[in-house]
Amino acid sequence: MITLHHLNASRSLRILWLLEEMGEPYTLIRYQRDPATRLAPASLKNIHPLGKSPVIELDGQVLVESGAIVEYLIRRFAPRLEPAFSSPDYLKYLQWIHFAESSAMVPVLLKLFTQFETNAGTQLKFLDGYTRAEFDKVLGYLDTALENRTFIVGDTLSGADFMLAFVAITVVEQMKCGAQYPHLQAYLQRLAALDSWKRALKLERELDE
Amino acid sequence: MITLHHLNASRSLRILWLLEEMGEPYTLIRYQRDPATRLAPASLKNIHPLGKSPVIELDGQVLVESGAIVEYLIRRFAPRLEPAFSSPDYLKYLQWIHFAESSAMVPVLLKLFTQFETNAGTQLKFLDGYTRAEFDKVLGYLDTALENRTFIVGDTLSGADFMLAFVAITVVEQMKCGAQYPHLQAYLQRLAALDSWKRALKLERELDE
Repeated sequence: MITLHHLNASRSLRILWLLEEMGEPYTLIRYQRDPATRLAPASLKNIHPLGKSPVIELDGQVLVESGAIVEYLIRRFAPRLEPAFSSPDYLKYLQWIHFAESSAMVPVLLKLFTQFETNAGTQLKFLDGYTRAEFDKVLGYLDTALENRTFIVGDTLSGADFMLAFVAITVVEQMKCGAQYPHLQAYLQRLAALDSWKRALKLERELDE
Repeated sequence: MITLHHLNASRSLRILWLLEEMGEPYTLIRYQRDPATRLAPASLKNIHPLGKSPVIELDGQVLVESGAIVEYLIRRFAPRLEPAFSSPDYLKYLQWIHFAESSAMVPVLLKLFTQFETNAGTQLKFLDGYTRAEFDKVLGYLDTALENRTFIVGDTLSGADFMLAFVAITVVEQMKCGAQYPHLQAYLQRLAALDSWKRALKLERELDE
């Protein structure tokens, strides 16, 4: 049995969506952010010292890192969401899975953090210019890669889409940059039309009630 | 044939070391940082729009993201560096590969960036406190995980070590935090004693000459 320790409004949405898509039975344990600080609750540290989400429990092991969880669950339970190892798409699959958290999320987080600083009146000397250039380069690259495509790899849904969806939600919905990255915005709309995505978002909303 | 576009003093050291460990023939194309700005040369953008390193060419495909490159090369050319999929170590293997670039490198980069700001006299209101707390938590977790271990997964060298080595070099050598994280420092010393590592570092030094 798979147990997901799920924090609302976090990268854990990737795994909630994946579990809904896979159809494998799972147990959901819910966590909510502190309403004032928006930080994860301290109770997540009882599951794993890093105190973050997603965390899964499986075969008596506790596993963090959404990229690792996506790769593992798919390879074991839903190989239809992974290109064949011998196909050229397999390299692209791995690349986009890693891209989502390394190349993409670093400038996304930097932009959110530098906005906190500038909103608080800090005069940044280096970070604002660096961040703007990196964000434009990386998100522009992703946006171009999504032009004329339904999913990011091949013609079908894959684990890479589960990873990129969180980038798209953050950039399009939270940061309101959809107009600047129209292919990313349209991609998010296509993903949002999938039944498994709708079920995952419905679960998130119910957990918030 | 594998071609590595290698930028000195970058995450590309992971792949140079892996290629030396694998023993598979490869072509090395060298790039140097701008001596003044320490940025990657613009010529890397001719290979891939993100303009970063490592980049490999293989079977006519261009692939970025060091985590993806490590996973793919090992699975195809050096399966001895990957635990069996059926073993509990496989989950740990994937977790540490993803941890290196997501959980670990984000606070490492934030610490380097905030040091640039504070050295330039910026009075940060949020980022310095947040960064210090995240860095201590994540590097402390890694340091504890390395206590009483030779390698990070099982008893043998694996792809996860190639990923974590760059974290260790940055934290121990570049940021001089080795005394604070003694197990990470000792781990780096153990890796540095391996023949393949010595050959990779010798190549880096020769490329700098």
